[in-house]
Amino acid sequence: MSHTAELIAVGTELLLGNIANTNAQTISQSLSALGINVFWHTVVGDNPQRLKEALDIARGRADILITTGGLGPTYDDLTKQTICEAFGKQLVLHPDILEEIRSFYESALHVPMPENNTQQAELPVGCTIFDNPVGTAPGCAFESDGIHVLMLPGPPHEMETMLRRHVEPYLRKLSHEVIISRDIMTFGMGESSVDQLLHEKMASMTNPTLATYAKPCEVRLRATAKAATEEEALKMLHPVWDMVCETLGDVVYSGDGGDLAEHCRGLLTLKNLTLATAESCTGGLVAERITAMPGASLVYRGGIVSYWTSVKANVLHIPQEILDTYGPVSPECARAMAEGVRDITGADLGVSVTGSAGPDPDERGVPVGIVYIGLATPEGTFCRSLDMGRRRRDRIQGLAANHAFDVVRRYLQGLPIEQI
Amino acid sequence: MSHTAELIAVGTELLLGNIANTNAQTISQSLSALGINVFWHTVVGDNPQRLKEALDIARGRADILITTGGLGPTYDDLTKQTICEAFGKQLVLHPDILEEIRSFYESALHVPMPENNTQQAELPVGCTIFDNPVGTAPGCAFESDGIHVLMLPGPPHEMETMLRRHVEPYLRKLSHEVIISRDIMTFGMGESSVDQLLHEKMASMTNPTLATYAKPCEVRLRATAKAATEEEALKMLHPVWDMVCETLGDVVYSGDGGDLAEHCRGLLTLKNLTLATAESCTGGLVAERITAMPGASLVYRGGIVSYWTSVKANVLHIPQEILDTYGPVSPECARAMAEGVRDITGADLGVSVTGSAGPDPDERGVPVGIVYIGLATPEGTFCRSLDMGRRRRDRIQGLAANHAFDVVRRYLQGLPIEQI
Repeated sequence: MSHTAELIAVGTELLLGNIANTNAQTISQSLSALGINVFWHTVVGDNPQRLKEALDIARGRADILITTGGLGPTYDDLTKQTICEAFGKQLVLHPDILEEIRSFYESALHVPMPENNTQQAELPVGCTIFDNPVGTAPGCAFESDGIHVLMLPGPPHEMETMLRRHVEPYLRKLSHEVIISRDIMTFGMGESSVDQLLHEKMASMTNPTLATYAKPCEVRLRATAKAATEEEALKMLHPVWDMVCETLGDVVYSGDGGDLAEHCRGLLTLKNLTLATAESCTGGLVAERITAMPGASLVYRGGIVSYWTSVKANVLHIPQEILDTYGPVSPECARAMAEGVRDITGADLGVSVTGSAGPDPDERGVPVGIVYIGLATPEGTFCRSLDMGRRRRDRIQGLAANHAFDVVRRYLQGLPIEQI
Repeated sequence: MSHTAELIAVGTELLLGNIANTNAQTISQSLSALGINVFWHTVVGDNPQRLKEALDIARGRADILITTGGLGPTYDDLTKQTICEAFGKQLVLHPDILEEIRSFYESALHVPMPENNTQQAELPVGCTIFDNPVGTAPGCAFESDGIHVLMLPGPPHEMETMLRRHVEPYLRKLSHEVIISRDIMTFGMGESSVDQLLHEKMASMTNPTLATYAKPCEVRLRATAKAATEEEALKMLHPVWDMVCETLGDVVYSGDGGDLAEHCRGLLTLKNLTLATAESCTGGLVAERITAMPGASLVYRGGIVSYWTSVKANVLHIPQEILDTYGPVSPECARAMAEGVRDITGADLGVSVTGSAGPDPDERGVPVGIVYIGLATPEGTFCRSLDMGRRRRDRIQGLAANHAFDVVRRYLQGLPIEQI
């Protein structure tokens, strides 16, 4: 039997926009992996009447209700009381849990437990208790007339710890199906073109399914299969991968969901090569994306952010002639930057980005969106010329950084580095 | 008359947990500032029947319905059709909008418009059109039996641009009260300390109000005033600013919501000074945050990402003696990096970051979380030593970048650069 869950987040701070409902995202990912449908997310404030209304609607359309928030010690934390009223359950004080909360205060926080934390030790009669090793509010679950109600705390790190430790095992027992998703990553083709090429096939698929979703600077596809076992589901995904690769060609770069920077790191590690960066219009974004990954120093030596032309001349040693004749935003300069940074850092590969990110054209009148990527390698230097048009500055920067990684990955995969 | 809004996000990717519903947060902040109540957020998938159900529930409990998503060019983008059916409206093709979309493709993206984008030019009869300068899907609004229905695109940057340009002015006309908020920015004091110092005052305020909210690497305060006019509301905020500055001292750096990087850029521009960066554990993040801002070249010359020690030696010319004796993660190296980058770029100020961002201690055994910030100036070189403890890598990197900006801003404001 297939289950349907509804997530109900309780908290006025969500409705005021103080925080985003990231708990819904985290829980949805888990449920999707467990093969449990999620058709609704609801957010209500710390208001018992509206929470009651949300519960009434949810129990009519889902058989697993998961709430987050409202389990704290303050007067507006009313989730447990409201749910117990709605489902005709009694709250009882658990002295052992009260002791745990008291000892959490004393040994971890080094302060006595405030008396209003007592209500956190009150839980519905006969419920399954989810203990909270990183906070004070325990979570819990009960079943009532075929509906499973789970209450989790609101702070994301408490919720997530409880989700992994208790909620996933609890829900796994309810499900007899495994759903596996794999993200197929592409770069270099717009969403509508990808959609046009795959539309008919996607529309005809039921299990496995395939869907596109655009990220700011690339297009991802998600392939999802349902089966009795993980092995079987994985097996169903192979032909989808083959079909996508065959249809889209070498714009497909990965089937494991890692982004272009991660993919390049993997290829560099595999080939035991190091990279250096010389950046102008991306201003350190390429370097930042590599070094955001732990262990980046295995493959990344360092880089130059040559924002001023004088830094291009003095640090990267770009010949003055190139800067005067072609200007700092030119294929010639991109090549010289890549060669320069490869040279001064001793890296195997040097990648460069120079361009006009806007909002105004550069001082020599180069239009916004013109970007050149250079790649210096032991086999010679490559260049990709791009015209991204009048997009926003952050988009041009993000897209240019992705193009830099794409040029690196194409070189490392032995693919032609064509103009786009 | 007070209005109540419900936000309905449409997108299966939200229910699968691929993305968080950040649009709901952004819109909620706007509505809160406009004095419009938000009691519900709902998320549904790309499923016309369930969207219809969500609309039916929402129109019974709110008089402003705002949808996000489902306005794209693909076959599962069905928001407009479903809403028109629910409210008995016809969709009509707007040839002028079709031309705008076509010209956006041709002149901005330099590719012909795919034919399936035509449906984006179909809008409900008699609606107010919200144009989309950063994407192809226009938004729109109509009123039906006292209920205002607004449809906005799903991609957050398109939604946000439209929100500021069109939706806020549209909604402001419905409201008779002005609510003005100002973000007061602090850096260098934890949330609980800020809270402890301001708690009593915050609790006693009703209009204006003051609330803290912690961002990953800094603490912000939001002061909000309600009044009949904008001028009056702004006047009510002055004493709040004074009180916060008096209570917290020089950890307060800005009252206009700009972050530390923006604040530094302003100070550098004002003083006509230029900056250069030398980064190790932040890997280009400081450079990236400066160059993300348009016009950064006025104040930023460039930087070195000296990830490998050899780059510190060969490009930044750090004496081998310092590297051997003190190691690359040391106050001595931080100072030499700042001086080195100031020297080779000719900038007025050189700021450096070196440290151990984890997850493992560096090769010389420096524990995770140890970071040194150097600042080379015409008046000499400063250094701030930090121990951030075993936080997550991205937190250490983000916090270290903020400390680099904080050291720059304190120098530029003539404040002592103390150890923290």
